[in-house]
Amino acid sequence: MDESQLALIDRYWRAANYLSVGQIYLMDNPLLREPLKAEHVKPRLLGHWGTTPGLNFIYAHLNRVIKERDLDMLYVCGPGHGGPAMVANPWLEGSYSEIYPEIGRDAVGMKKLFKQFSFPGGVPSHVAPETPGSIHEGGELGYALVHAFGAAFDNPDLVVACVVGDGEAETGPLAAAWHSNKFLNPRHDGAVLPILHLNGYKIANPTILARMDERELKSLFQGYGYDPFFVEGSDPMAMHGLMAATLDEVMVRIRDIQVESRAEGWSGARPRWPMIVLRSPKGWTGPVDVDGKKVEDFWRSHQVPVSNARGDDGHRKILEDWMRGYHVEELFDEEGRLLPELAALAPTGAKRMGALPHANGGLLKKDLILPDWKSLALDVPKPGAANGEATRLMGAYLREVMALNAEARNFRLMGPDETASNRLDAVFDVTDRIWMERIEPYDIGLARDGRVMEVLSEHLCHGWLEGYLLTGRHGLFSCYEAFIHIVDSMVNQHAKWLKTSAELEWRKPIASLNYLLTSHVWRQDHNGFSHQDPGFADFVANKKADIVRLYFPPDANTLLWVTDHCLRTWNRINVITAGKQPAPQWLTADEAERHCKAGVGIWDWASTCPADVEPDLVIASAGDVPTMEALAATELLATALPDLKIRFVNVVDLMTLQSSSEHPHGVTDAVFDKMFTADKPVIFAYHGYPYLIHRLTYRRTNHDNFHVHGFREEGTTTTPFDMAVLNQLDRFHLALAAIRRLQKFTERSAQFGAALERKLEEHKAYVREHGEDMPEIRDWRWSTTRNSSLGE
Amino acid sequence: MDESQLALIDRYWRAANYLSVGQIYLMDNPLLREPLKAEHVKPRLLGHWGTTPGLNFIYAHLNRVIKERDLDMLYVCGPGHGGPAMVANPWLEGSYSEIYPEIGRDAVGMKKLFKQFSFPGGVPSHVAPETPGSIHEGGELGYALVHAFGAAFDNPDLVVACVVGDGEAETGPLAAAWHSNKFLNPRHDGAVLPILHLNGYKIANPTILARMDERELKSLFQGYGYDPFFVEGSDPMAMHGLMAATLDEVMVRIRDIQVESRAEGWSGARPRWPMIVLRSPKGWTGPVDVDGKKVEDFWRSHQVPVSNARGDDGHRKILEDWMRGYHVEELFDEEGRLLPELAALAPTGAKRMGALPHANGGLLKKDLILPDWKSLALDVPKPGAANGEATRLMGAYLREVMALNAEARNFRLMGPDETASNRLDAVFDVTDRIWMERIEPYDIGLARDGRVMEVLSEHLCHGWLEGYLLTGRHGLFSCYEAFIHIVDSMVNQHAKWLKTSAELEWRKPIASLNYLLTSHVWRQDHNGFSHQDPGFADFVANKKADIVRLYFPPDANTLLWVTDHCLRTWNRINVITAGKQPAPQWLTADEAERHCKAGVGIWDWASTCPADVEPDLVIASAGDVPTMEALAATELLATALPDLKIRFVNVVDLMTLQSSSEHPHGVTDAVFDKMFTADKPVIFAYHGYPYLIHRLTYRRTNHDNFHVHGFREEGTTTTPFDMAVLNQLDRFHLALAAIRRLQKFTERSAQFGAALERKLEEHKAYVREHGEDMPEIRDWRWSTTRNSSLGE
Repeated sequence: MDESQLALIDRYWRAANYLSVGQIYLMDNPLLREPLKAEHVKPRLLGHWGTTPGLNFIYAHLNRVIKERDLDMLYVCGPGHGGPAMVANPWLEGSYSEIYPEIGRDAVGMKKLFKQFSFPGGVPSHVAPETPGSIHEGGELGYALVHAFGAAFDNPDLVVACVVGDGEAETGPLAAAWHSNKFLNPRHDGAVLPILHLNGYKIANPTILARMDERELKSLFQGYGYDPFFVEGSDPMAMHGLMAATLDEVMVRIRDIQVESRAEGWSGARPRWPMIVLRSPKGWTGPVDVDGKKVEDFWRSHQVPVSNARGDDGHRKILEDWMRGYHVEELFDEEGRLLPELAALAPTGAKRMGALPHANGGLLKKDLILPDWKSLALDVPKPGAANGEATRLMGAYLREVMALNAEARNFRLMGPDETASNRLDAVFDVTDRIWMERIEPYDIGLARDGRVMEVLSEHLCHGWLEGYLLTGRHGLFSCYEAFIHIVDSMVNQHAKWLKTSAELEWRKPIASLNYLLTSHVWRQDHNGFSHQDPGFADFVANKKADIVRLYFPPDANTLLWVTDHCLRTWNRINVITAGKQPAPQWLTADEAERHCKAGVGIWDWASTCPADVEPDLVIASAGDVPTMEALAATELLATALPDLKIRFVNVVDLMTLQSSSEHPHGVTDAVFDKMFTADKPVIFAYHGYPYLIHRLTYRRTNHDNFHVHGFREEGTTTTPFDMAVLNQLDRFHLALAAIRRLQKFTERSAQFGAALERKLEEHKAYVREHGEDMPEIRDWRWSTTRNSSLGE
Repeated sequence: MDESQLALIDRYWRAANYLSVGQIYLMDNPLLREPLKAEHVKPRLLGHWGTTPGLNFIYAHLNRVIKERDLDMLYVCGPGHGGPAMVANPWLEGSYSEIYPEIGRDAVGMKKLFKQFSFPGGVPSHVAPETPGSIHEGGELGYALVHAFGAAFDNPDLVVACVVGDGEAETGPLAAAWHSNKFLNPRHDGAVLPILHLNGYKIANPTILARMDERELKSLFQGYGYDPFFVEGSDPMAMHGLMAATLDEVMVRIRDIQVESRAEGWSGARPRWPMIVLRSPKGWTGPVDVDGKKVEDFWRSHQVPVSNARGDDGHRKILEDWMRGYHVEELFDEEGRLLPELAALAPTGAKRMGALPHANGGLLKKDLILPDWKSLALDVPKPGAANGEATRLMGAYLREVMALNAEARNFRLMGPDETASNRLDAVFDVTDRIWMERIEPYDIGLARDGRVMEVLSEHLCHGWLEGYLLTGRHGLFSCYEAFIHIVDSMVNQHAKWLKTSAELEWRKPIASLNYLLTSHVWRQDHNGFSHQDPGFADFVANKKADIVRLYFPPDANTLLWVTDHCLRTWNRINVITAGKQPAPQWLTADEAERHCKAGVGIWDWASTCPADVEPDLVIASAGDVPTMEALAATELLATALPDLKIRFVNVVDLMTLQSSSEHPHGVTDAVFDKMFTADKPVIFAYHGYPYLIHRLTYRRTNHDNFHVHGFREEGTTTTPFDMAVLNQLDRFHLALAAIRRLQKFTERSAQFGAALERKLEEHKAYVREHGEDMPEIRDWRWSTTRNSSLGE
C-alpha cells in the first residue's frame, strides 16, 4: 500500500486518539484554540487511556478493508474500558451524530462529546448499550470472543472482528472461547477474526500472554486451531504498513475459506482460521513518562496517565503537549469538522461499524414461527390421571420450533452436553449437534450443520446465545439447575444491558434470554449434594423488575404454555424451572392456559371447599415436586380431618407474588388477600430457598402467617422422596406444619401428627434398608374421585 | 519393568475395577460366591462407570511410584463422578477402614462398602468430603487443576497428581488453569503433574480435546508451557508398560527440575513441567455393547452401562459376566481380603493417598501469628474528626501478617490484578507478586518468590486459595465487589464442602475462606454500571448459617478488628465489604472492638436521645457509605427538628439481624426489640439490595416498620454522591423517608421535606454542570460538637 494512503490512515488514527484524550480530560476548549487552562479540564478524570490507542488503530484499519471489500463488519471490543475509542470512531464516521443529534459533527458537538464522557448525565466510561455499534458491555472481562462467535453463527456474510485484550485473555471464559472454532461452520456461519491485543499490562501487572515465550505463544494458538499473524512494533508508520498488509492477507484467507466451504464438494473439514496478534505499547502515543515515572508501554498508562491536569500546571502542560502532538490542524477544519480526505476513509451508511444493523439486533429480529402448542399437549382426563415427563413434551415443542424456523436459521438451542439428558432429544428428529471435529460412523446426532450447540461450558453456551440474541435471533439455554450459577455474572451483565437498552429509544428490542433449568435440586439421584442448588431465582430476582420472570410450571402442559410464551417475549430474562422425570400431570391444555395466564390461582379440584368460602388453611405451591408433595399433604389432611376447609393455590409465575407496585406481573393486594386470606395459615411448598417467598411477599397483609418450606441446603445422593424429607418439603412435614398452625381440631390433629411422625420414621427405616422409597410413596396417585366432587 | 510386576499391577487394577462395579450395582453377594440374583442388585442404580477404570488405572500406577520414591502424593480427581474409584482404592489400601471401621477389609465390609454407595444414609456417588484422600468435590467440573496448584504452593515435597477429564477440560476455569504454571516456583512449591484423561466422551457427546488433531493437541499443551507425554491405547498389559515407563520418566523429570531449582545458581527460569495425556477407552473393561448398542469406548458407558440388571435376566447376565471377568479369585481370599501380594503394592501409613495428611488439611493447619491490630489503628479523636482509607489500613495489617508468617510460609493473598488498586499495597513492603515469566528491570513488585498472587481470573484466585486452605494454610482473596459473582458457583461448592466436612469428625477444621470485597458499588466512579452489584451477600446468605458471615465495617478501625477476627476463624466463609476511598472515621480502636464484638449496637454519640429513652425514630446503617449518609441524614433531621428523638444503630455483622434461632450470631428478639423498638419507624441504609434486610428481619417484631434503602440497580459512571442519589440512599432521600413516617412535627416536616426536595434538584443541576459534587457534600463533616453533648 502506498505511503500516502498509510499517511491518511495515520491521520485518521490521530484524530481518534485526539478525540479519546479529549473525552477523558476536557470539558471545554475542544480544539485547543486557546492555551489549555485549568477550567477546561474536568474536575474528576474518569476513564481508561491505556488500551484506547490500540483500539483506535484497529478501527482505522478495519475501516479500510470494509470499504475496499464492501464488508459487513462488527467490531466486538473486548477491552471495553476503552470506551473513548468506541465513542470517538462512530463520531468520526458520523453514525454517532445520527443517533445522538445533539452531539453534532462540529466544534460545538465536539465540546459536548468531550464533556459528556464519564460525566454525570452523560455516557459511561466503558463500552455500553449507549455506544453505537456495540453488542458487548465492556465492564466485566471474559466474554468478547464468545459473543463474537454468537454473532457470527448463521450470519454468513458477517465478519466479526473481535479484539481480545491480553488481560481478558487470562480469564477462564475467554481461554475456553478460543475453542468456539470447533462449532463454527464456514458454509453457513460468518467469520470471526480474533485480534489478540498484547499491550503488555493490566492495572498493575504484566499480562501472561505478553510475557510468554514467543514460540509458546504461537504454539498455543496453533494448538487452539488458528493460524496466527503477528503485527508487532511501536513505530506508527511501520505498524500501519504491517497492519494493512496483514489485514489484506487475512481477509483473503477468510474469503478463500468461505468460497471453498460454500462450493460443491466441500470436504467439511474445519478450516484453520486466521487470527492477528497485535503487539503495541499500552498508552501508545501518550506521555512517555510523568513525574519521572515510566507511563507509555507500562501499566501506569492504564487509566489517566496525567492525573492532576486541572490542579497542576506541569501536568496540564504534559496534557496540552500530548494533545497538540496529534496536530489537530491536520485533522479538523475551522468548524471542528473532520477534514474531507479523512472523512472519506470511513465506510458509508450501514457499512459504518457504528451503524451496522447487527449491532442493534432488534432491527433485524424476525418473530419466530411457533407451532400450536396445544396440538402437542398431553391428554389429562382428570388431575393426576396421566403421567408424563414435562421436558420431553417441551422437547417435542422445540422440535417443531426448530423445523418451522429451519429456513430462517434464526433459532438455536444451547446446552452443556445435556440436551438428551434433559429429555429434549426430540429436537434431534429434525436437526443435529453442530460439530466441526472428526465425526465417527458410530456417532449419534453430530453434523456439520446442526442447530443444537453442546459444549461442557456453561460460559460458552451462555455467551454464544447472548451474541446470537444481541444480533437479532432467538434461542434457549437448557442447563442443570445447580450449575447455572456458573454464569451468574454473565446474567448480571446481560440484565444490565437490557435495562439500559430499554431506556434508549434507538435500541430495538431483542429476543428474550430463555433458560430451562432442569435436572433440578429435587431429582439429583445420580449426583447428590454438589448438584443441589435452586438459588438462581434469588439471584435473578435482584435484577430490574421489568426484565425478570421466574416460571415454575407444575406439569407438562403448563411447561408448554410457558415455553411458548417465553419465545414470544422480548428484552426479558425468562427462567423456567421444570423437572424431567416422570410425574403426575394436573392440568389439561385449556386449564393450563387459563392458569398460566393468571400466573397464580386457586385449584378448586384440589381444595376441600369452594373458592368463595373462607378456608381454615391455605396450602400453596410453586414448582413441580413441591406441588406434588403439597397435593399429597392436602389429601392426607383432608382424609384425617374431613371438616377442615383447605384452599389449594398454585403459583406458576413467581413474580405475581410481589406487589403490583414493584413488579408488572405482581397481583394487586386485593387479589392477593382474596387468594391467600388476611389471617389464615399459609403452608407454602416452594421449589427453592424459602427466603425468596418471604422476600417477595413481606408487604402482603397475611405475610406473618406464611410458613414456607423449601430447600434447606440438606442434600445427598438418595431417593427422590428422601430428598424432600431431608428438607421438610415432603407431604408428611407439610401436613405437620399445617396442623401445628390450626386453631381447631386440636385433639384429632394431635393424633394425626403422631401418625405423621411415625410415617417419617417408617420412611427413614425403609429407604435405608431397601434403597428406594416405600411403595405407598412410589405408587401414590392423586385420588380424584373424592375431590372432584368438591366444587359441586 | 518386568512383566510379573506389571501383572501384579494389572491384578490390583482389576480389584479396584471389581470393587467399583460392585459399588454401583450390588447390595449383596459381594464376592459372587453364588450366582447373581435379582435381589443382590440394588433397586436404584446410581453412579458413573465411564471414567472409573481410568481413575483406577492411574491410582494403581501412582501407588507404585509413591512406594518406589517414597513420595507424598495427593490425588486430585477432576472426574469426581468417578466416586467408585476413589472409594475402592482407599478401601484396598486400608485407609478407608481406618476412618470408617464399620467398613472392614473383608467380605462383610465389602458388602457394606457396596451397599452404602449412592444409597440412602450411605456415601454420595461423587468424590466428596466423605472420600478419604480428597480435597476436591467432584460435582461441578472445572476446578481440579486450580485446586491442585493451590495445594502445591508452599508444599515443596508434595507431588499433586491431578486427573483432568476431557469433559472438564472444556470449561473456562480449567482452560485458564493450565497457566498456573506461571505462578509456581519449583524451589519453594511442590509439583503438579497434570494427567489429561482423554476417554473421548461426555454424557452424550465426544469431547473437543479427544477429537482434536493430534498435532494441535500437542501444540496446545506445549503452548501452555508443558511437555506432554502420551500414553495411548486399550490393551491393558501394553498400557501398563507404557504408563509405568512414562511415570518413571516424568518423575525423574520432576525431580531434576526440583534439584536444579533448589541448588545455588538457579537461573530462575520457569521449567517446562511434564504432563501426561492418557488416552484410554471410556468404560474400559466394561461391557463392549448392550442390547446391540456400543457401550465401551463410547458415551453410553458414562453412567450405568447395564441399566436393568435387577429386572432383566439378560442384563444381569451381562453384569455377572463382566464382574467375573475380573477373576475375583485372583484378587481376594476366602474372607474377602485383598491377597497379600496385591496388598503389598500399596504404600503404607501416611503415604497412602487415602491417608495423606494434606488431604485433611486441618491436621496440618497451624494458627497464624497475628499482629496487635490496635497498634495499627487510626487515631480518631472524635467521631468524624479523622479521615482515612479503610483498606489502606487493612493493607498495613496484612503486611504484618505477611511478615510474621514469612518463615512458616502459610499465608497468601490472592487478587485479580487489584491488590494495589484496592490499596492493600503495604504488603509489597515485605513481599512481591509471584511471577515466573520474564521480569523487566522496570517492573515493580514482581519476583520469583512473591506471596501475593495476581492474575486476571477470579476463578484462578479463588481456586488456588481453596486448594491452599484445604491443605491446611491461610489466605485472603481481595476482589472487586461486582465481579465476585464470577465465582458464585465455586463458593457454592466450597460451602457445601465445609458443611459436610463439619459433620465428619475425622475431617479437621481448615482456615476460613476470607474475602475482602472492595471497589464497591458506591464508589465505581471509573467503571460505572457494569461494576455495580452488591448481591454476593444475598447469594452467600443462602448457605448454611453456621458457615456464613457477612461483615460491613463502617470505617478503618472496625475493618481492622473484622480482618483480625476472620483470620482467627475456621470452617467459615467470611465476606468483608469495605471501601478503599478516603472517608470519615467514626470509632477509636477500643470503641471498634466493643462495637464489632457485639456486631450491632446503638451509637450514642450519633443519637439525639440517650439509649434508654424510647426514640421517635431509628436510623440504622450497614456499610461504610450508607453509614456516612445515614449520619448526615441524622444531622439534617436533628437540625431541622431539634425535638425529634433519633436513635442511631449501626450493624457490622449482618447476621446479627437474623433470629438467634436461625443463625448463631443472631441477637435474641428481646435485644433486637430493645434496639429497633417495637413500633417506631426504622430507616435502614444498607449497602446492598434492600431485600436482604427484609429477609433477615421478617420475623422480628417491628419488621413492618422497616424501610430499607439500598441498591436499586440504578447506576452509571457518575459522582459518588450522585450514585447514592440515583438509588435514594443519600442523606436527602433518607431524611425524606424519615419524615414521611413521622407521626408528629407534621408542619415543620413538610417545610423540611420541601427543602430536601430542593436540595436534590440543586444537586442534580450542579453535578450535570460541574461534574463533581456540591462543595457542601464534598466538604461535609460530622459535627461532633453538637452531638457529643447529647449523652451528658
